[in-house]
Amino acid sequence: MADAPRTAHLGHTRLDLDRARRTGLPEAIYAAGKTPQQCVEIVSRLLESGDDPVIVTRTRDEHRDALAPLSPVATVGSTLSWRHLPTAGIAPVVVVSGGTSDAPVVDEAIATLQACGAPTGVHHDVGVAGLHRLLEVVPELSDAAVVIAVAGMEGALPTVLAGLIAAPIITVPTSVGYGSSLDGVTALLSSLASCAPGLTVVGIDNGYGAACAALRILGRGPTSEAP
Amino acid sequence: MADAPRTAHLGHTRLDLDRARRTGLPEAIYAAGKTPQQCVEIVSRLLESGDDPVIVTRTRDEHRDALAPLSPVATVGSTLSWRHLPTAGIAPVVVVSGGTSDAPVVDEAIATLQACGAPTGVHHDVGVAGLHRLLEVVPELSDAAVVIAVAGMEGALPTVLAGLIAAPIITVPTSVGYGSSLDGVTALLSSLASCAPGLTVVGIDNGYGAACAALRILGRGPTSEAP
Amino acid sequence: MADAPRTAHLGHTRLDLDRARRTGLPEAIYAAGKTPQQCVEIVSRLLESGDDPVIVTRTRDEHRDALAPLSPVATVGSTLSWRHLPTAGIAPVVVVSGGTSDAPVVDEAIATLQACGAPTGVHHDVGVAGLHRLLEVVPELSDAAVVIAVAGMEGALPTVLAGLIAAPIITVPTSVGYGSSLDGVTALLSSLASCAPGLTVVGIDNGYGAACAALRILGRGPTSEAP
Amino acid sequence: MADAPRTAHLGHTRLDLDRARRTGLPEAIYAAGKTPQQCVEIVSRLLESGDDPVIVTRTRDEHRDALAPLSPVATVGSTLSWRHLPTAGIAPVVVVSGGTSDAPVVDEAIATLQACGAPTGVHHDVGVAGLHRLLEVVPELSDAAVVIAVAGMEGALPTVLAGLIAAPIITVPTSVGYGSSLDGVTALLSSLASCAPGLTVVGIDNGYGAACAALRILGRGPTSEAP
Amino acid sequence: MADAPRTAHLGHTRLDLDRARRTGLPEAIYAAGKTPQQCVEIVSRLLESGDDPVIVTRTRDEHRDALAPLSPVATVGSTLSWRHLPTAGIAPVVVVSGGTSDAPVVDEAIATLQACGAPTGVHHDVGVAGLHRLLEVVPELSDAAVVIAVAGMEGALPTVLAGLIAAPIITVPTSVGYGSSLDGVTALLSSLASCAPGLTVVGIDNGYGAACAALRILGRGPTSEAP
Amino acid sequence: MADAPRTAHLGHTRLDLDRARRTGLPEAIYAAGKTPQQCVEIVSRLLESGDDPVIVTRTRDEHRDALAPLSPVATVGSTLSWRHLPTAGIAPVVVVSGGTSDAPVVDEAIATLQACGAPTGVHHDVGVAGLHRLLEVVPELSDAAVVIAVAGMEGALPTVLAGLIAAPIITVPTSVGYGSSLDGVTALLSSLASCAPGLTVVGIDNGYGAACAALRILGRGPTSEAP
Amino acid sequence: MADAPRTAHLGHTRLDLDRARRTGLPEAIYAAGKTPQQCVEIVSRLLESGDDPVIVTRTRDEHRDALAPLSPVATVGSTLSWRHLPTAGIAPVVVVSGGTSDAPVVDEAIATLQACGAPTGVHHDVGVAGLHRLLEVVPELSDAAVVIAVAGMEGALPTVLAGLIAAPIITVPTSVGYGSSLDGVTALLSSLASCAPGLTVVGIDNGYGAACAALRILGRGPTSEAP
Amino acid sequence: MADAPRTAHLGHTRLDLDRARRTGLPEAIYAAGKTPQQCVEIVSRLLESGDDPVIVTRTRDEHRDALAPLSPVATVGSTLSWRHLPTAGIAPVVVVSGGTSDAPVVDEAIATLQACGAPTGVHHDVGVAGLHRLLEVVPELSDAAVVIAVAGMEGALPTVLAGLIAAPIITVPTSVGYGSSLDGVTALLSSLASCAPGLTVVGIDNGYGAACAALRILGRGPTSEAP
Repeated sequence: MADAPRTAHLGHTRLDLDRARRTGLPEAIYAAGKTPQQCVEIVSRLLESGDDPVIVTRTRDEHRDALAPLSPVATVGSTLSWRHLPTAGIAPVVVVSGGTSDAPVVDEAIATLQACGAPTGVHHDVGVAGLHRLLEVVPELSDAAVVIAVAGMEGALPTVLAGLIAAPIITVPTSVGYGSSLDGVTALLSSLASCAPGLTVVGIDNGYGAACAALRILGRGPTSEAP
Repeated sequence: MADAPRTAHLGHTRLDLDRARRTGLPEAIYAAGKTPQQCVEIVSRLLESGDDPVIVTRTRDEHRDALAPLSPVATVGSTLSWRHLPTAGIAPVVVVSGGTSDAPVVDEAIATLQACGAPTGVHHDVGVAGLHRLLEVVPELSDAAVVIAVAGMEGALPTVLAGLIAAPIITVPTSVGYGSSLDGVTALLSSLASCAPGLTVVGIDNGYGAACAALRILGRGPTSEAP
Repeated sequence: MADAPRTAHLGHTRLDLDRARRTGLPEAIYAAGKTPQQCVEIVSRLLESGDDPVIVTRTRDEHRDALAPLSPVATVGSTLSWRHLPTAGIAPVVVVSGGTSDAPVVDEAIATLQACGAPTGVHHDVGVAGLHRLLEVVPELSDAAVVIAVAGMEGALPTVLAGLIAAPIITVPTSVGYGSSLDGVTALLSSLASCAPGLTVVGIDNGYGAACAALRILGRGPTSEAP
Repeated sequence: MADAPRTAHLGHTRLDLDRARRTGLPEAIYAAGKTPQQCVEIVSRLLESGDDPVIVTRTRDEHRDALAPLSPVATVGSTLSWRHLPTAGIAPVVVVSGGTSDAPVVDEAIATLQACGAPTGVHHDVGVAGLHRLLEVVPELSDAAVVIAVAGMEGALPTVLAGLIAAPIITVPTSVGYGSSLDGVTALLSSLASCAPGLTVVGIDNGYGAACAALRILGRGPTSEAP
Repeated sequence: MADAPRTAHLGHTRLDLDRARRTGLPEAIYAAGKTPQQCVEIVSRLLESGDDPVIVTRTRDEHRDALAPLSPVATVGSTLSWRHLPTAGIAPVVVVSGGTSDAPVVDEAIATLQACGAPTGVHHDVGVAGLHRLLEVVPELSDAAVVIAVAGMEGALPTVLAGLIAAPIITVPTSVGYGSSLDGVTALLSSLASCAPGLTVVGIDNGYGAACAALRILGRGPTSEAP
Repeated sequence: MADAPRTAHLGHTRLDLDRARRTGLPEAIYAAGKTPQQCVEIVSRLLESGDDPVIVTRTRDEHRDALAPLSPVATVGSTLSWRHLPTAGIAPVVVVSGGTSDAPVVDEAIATLQACGAPTGVHHDVGVAGLHRLLEVVPELSDAAVVIAVAGMEGALPTVLAGLIAAPIITVPTSVGYGSSLDGVTALLSSLASCAPGLTVVGIDNGYGAACAALRILGRGPTSEAP
Repeated sequence: MADAPRTAHLGHTRLDLDRARRTGLPEAIYAAGKTPQQCVEIVSRLLESGDDPVIVTRTRDEHRDALAPLSPVATVGSTLSWRHLPTAGIAPVVVVSGGTSDAPVVDEAIATLQACGAPTGVHHDVGVAGLHRLLEVVPELSDAAVVIAVAGMEGALPTVLAGLIAAPIITVPTSVGYGSSLDGVTALLSSLASCAPGLTVVGIDNGYGAACAALRILGRGPTSEAP
Repeated sequence: MADAPRTAHLGHTRLDLDRARRTGLPEAIYAAGKTPQQCVEIVSRLLESGDDPVIVTRTRDEHRDALAPLSPVATVGSTLSWRHLPTAGIAPVVVVSGGTSDAPVVDEAIATLQACGAPTGVHHDVGVAGLHRLLEVVPELSDAAVVIAVAGMEGALPTVLAGLIAAPIITVPTSVGYGSSLDGVTALLSSLASCAPGLTVVGIDNGYGAACAALRILGRGPTSEAP
């Protein structure tokens, strides 16, 4: 742990100013449990130090209103970001979703990837109930550096995909569905118990986490760019 | 409830001698919770009355030894049967399984169907991790009267199937798998939450129940044959 | 998979224009996770292609307001439909419910069946706490092609029914009840563990799914009508 | 709490010598978690003090062998008892079971009731899959002081019963069944969520507890006999 | 089942006009899943037939407003009732609660008991964290015909009570508490697993069910009054 | 139980006026399940008797408005308190949290400790994803009398802490996080299953309970102060 | 973290030779997942370094046979220990259990405490079903430095205790009980949701963990003894 | 899907001879649910076709005895393998475990990786209760291509690791632990809910799956070697 890592104290929050240096990933602010004012203070402080990307996820309208004066570079769904890295000239991370209702989770992953300079691709609504919809995008997925499979309900999409392509696959189970979907638990268990080998999973609805896992595989982020 | 239904008392057991007349399904004996001697008494009594098929499921060695003197017509896995109905000249019930380890559940379904005169077909090990294995049997499934899909682990097989064929599909989740398979609960939830419409489900490992549901669809059994 | 299946891209949605041809079931739009505008775009696109029925389930007021200009043929509860098939001259699908509060699920099943041309019957509120209420409708159920049993709370209705009639029975557990009903999980487990053979189950509150399963049994839908 | 309650110390165990005086129920020894030697010491000590019935439940062979020299008055299944109260001349407690495999739980209830002087009746195997089996015993149940309904699998028996008779009904869910029966949890939830009013429940497989609840209703036991 | 039971059809509801005759309990209407108009129709129809008490539980303001013109005899919390039976001159049913927040469940039980003519007593807030609060009411509980113990959080109250008194005890677990109370599941499991024998349980928050169980024990209700 | 404990009856509530004398902890009022008027009555009555601290937790705006005329000494988040004990000159109870969003639970603990005279310290946002943030506060924690570790999500903070310091550690799992955090269950299980010995846990979000446990360790409260 | 902590590598195991110095607790070996040979190697290595106590928990016969040549100082149930600290002259840690079957967990706690020099007391079988059994030991518990409450089934013992005494209380839920006890989960939830403030909990059956938590409170262990 | 994939039928099993070509991963045989004879037939058939590695996991003694005549190249724990690929000259996959008892899962991952030609490293027993044990291996982990973190109990290891290194991390929760570890569910939830970004998870005890996910990241396997 060579140099002592730097920390910034904001009273309610203790900022980790070296996370990107250690892990290749910028610190993201999870807005859902914070007041708009807390988010503004944290983002302001981060923008004053270093030059890593800054990301805020799960904002509501009041968060976005409060953060607007800080001029985010991009707002994708409920994710805001500042100081994007330039997009790298490498194979893309491709995100596929099982259905239209999974879009907010797809957006969170895409927003995170783009802020960190990863090239991206998206295919919405390729669930296995219409298998040809998935099969027609398979060739494109085979060229991906990483595939992120976003799926709710029974979560069969990643399993079928894992039998068809050789790329790393990261599953994001979503809380889309009702009744027996159990708010995403069914899709989560489904990917964990999959008969198709080599599938990995992140938490329910965690598009940000899937993007970070993909960035780890790419070796992307400030550290590996400029150590 | 027209004529008073007939019942036979054996002390520990109260036999429903008219179940087949009412429901088109013979009474089956679930051996797992009964002593070999109780099974022998029940089967003997049933063989003395009427002429419906008699089925005993989930036998262990000691049950099979005790029942052998009663000369079962067939022993398939742990299921024994007597007084089979003649096989009808209709479209078959086809049973497909996701993996080799699902075989005991497949056997229970097949044994029940054959005892009641339903023509059957079987395709073992067509799980979706190797999609072409499933696709090569799809044409045959399209001709089935009913398809029974037996699958453990993540249970994606029935969902994929339901997007490909128009026949009625009955899913049997199995307790095959480990860890996150949760003894079949994952496969069960997966089918219940499926994005593919028109999938129905029976209890975990319940091959007998799936066969009975198929027989209801066929309108098979003593009643509908000879009312 | 003969001819390449046709797909329509709407950006957020990838429509499966051949689902009815393959599975005998029209594609239904689940409104709950979609904006009114997305629903309008999808329905408009579907009405432009082919002549299969179009169904939208789980609409809220804002969805229905937005879809009204597209002139649905029928609005039953929260389900809208277009381009109904003519009602076939066959034995009906009869839906029974355990209590008055199950009505929205009953409506979803009936609306789907009617759009696809299946003759239907309904008996509300025949729960087993007043057994004679059920017994007085049993004769009518015996003539049904399929019985859909909709029940919440303890879900005993399908089990009792399965001991009385020979028709195929599809259970829809509902989230009706409170406390120990666990939002439908109790009724779901009850049907899956039933001592009565040949009961099949669909997901909690999934009236649409039960109707589709019944349509599979009837061999109904555009495909089997006009292949 | 009038007189100070009496206690006997055995090192590993602290005997409550006045439980019967307070609650009308003798202290029972649950053998499953105790060594045969501990059971012998406890029973010996109880037989030396007072004249209440003594009951040992859930014995295995080694417990029964060790306790045989203490000459139990009755051994019913795995329950042993000493110093029975004379049978009272009152309406009986009637135990009904859903299936033959529920017999061990029925036995535990019956053994406890008989030791405490309650008249008893039993009807095995009257599950609702053959409704007439239950209906033919209903008249007899209507005369009962209390009905104990022992049922596993989906546990529909107590619900149906509660719609037919006015007597107090105590349900014992059993771990009989497999897969989706979840070792009795399904039957437990089913009775708790029942649409039939006035049903009460004890723990899974707890035949002893159900008998004690019935004894409370009867006002039976040493206290109320001889205060 | 002697005389054919009488039923009244209201379209959405099938009234069981003889439930009281069979089970000694009037049919109660669970308002939560019904519209105010449905409740009015059902109550009106019941008031036209026979002379049993009529009870409506879980009303909201709009239900109470709609039902007011039907002049309920009593409104206790969210429970309304008509045609009370005269209070019998017998030992009372005493309801105890663990805390002030359990009051709505206590009210539901008391309202039901009073409508059916059972004398009642109440002790609020005698939870075991202040044991003397409970001990000071024990003498009064010992004279009760039945004790209903209403408790949320960890649900220890009924267990302690069952070691102190001989009367029948019916536990109602409540959803009072937060976090690890799991909406009543903890209190429910606690009573079911109790080390104190003879405790029975009804569903979470089910004050109505507990009252009905007490009425069964009392042999109260129209039937036993006037057969 | 020496002198008879004193109790005050308020109809809906039975106040335990001697809890502090017995347990060293004042009775706290959990406002969430009570009306503002009930809270006012209870606090008023407690302020009239004895001189123990009085604490009200989980207030909403309407509770605070109603209680304002009673002039609370402190309002920390949603916790109000009266009659604080003087702060003792002993080692402090230090509260650490994993993230900014855990603040309400931290506040509840701090408010309770301060009302009872315990010196306190706080370190917000020292979660293990930035290990150096935790390591930089470890020296200060080593001097604490008790450490309260407040953590949601995966709850790894207390485990890491328990390997680094010798002080007693009380974990409060919080419902902070989403999806797989399961409203605090994950953090709860994590601490209970911890590989680090000597960690204790209180209920999810229960900052008040953790403070009380710390006060028990300090031997603080009215009793030990003035017996 | 002053001096670099010392570690010993055994291939399969990496020994933490300074845990006692940091946390005041010796490293214990959990035998259940290790071979007898691995246990022998680890204990031998620990006995060669420093002079802290060494503890092995959850041994089976084969572990004890293999470890016998290393001459343990004490064997209490399945726990072995070496190099005990001298017993300190302070208030004792008192362990109470709800029933005789909880003894193995009591033994594990006592063995750990004694090896580390804490004075101990034990009261077996004081469950709340016989409240006077508990009340008669309360005076003794009031003098304890810490009380460890070991209880399975419904786990009401710690809640009642917490209302009666001021000492720190650590609950160990046990897997004693059957059916609805859910292998200790019920007792665990019960203590976490307790209405009695200041109760802390360790994992199910974790007598070792409870002892370590008590040792943290005592400030016992090699470090605080000889720093 | 270019060339039709090749399949081999063995009756009970349908071999996917092109999985490696599509997914870069050889088909592994899960022995636990298969007879020794079935394993022999499958391995023999695979060895006859192509030249991909062949792996059998979860063997018991009888499987290993039956497979010995087929001369496996390596036997690591319960995993057997044939036809290893040459080890590639790239950064290694490093496997770390929380404790000695996790060794069987570590072995399964290592065996799979080595058969497929990935260079490997292992660090046993670096759980976070002794943080310096982990910190001393961090430098080595920073050079890894992929880190597989194997941890049971509370599963904090991967979370701490994810805050320290930039490499891709794959978590394998293990069923090591007891009581509240819930057979691995606690460790699983812990990683899914982690506050540390970019952590991915495979199923409980699934060392084989983690190895396959690592191989996908490496782009290893027959396909990527020889397309």
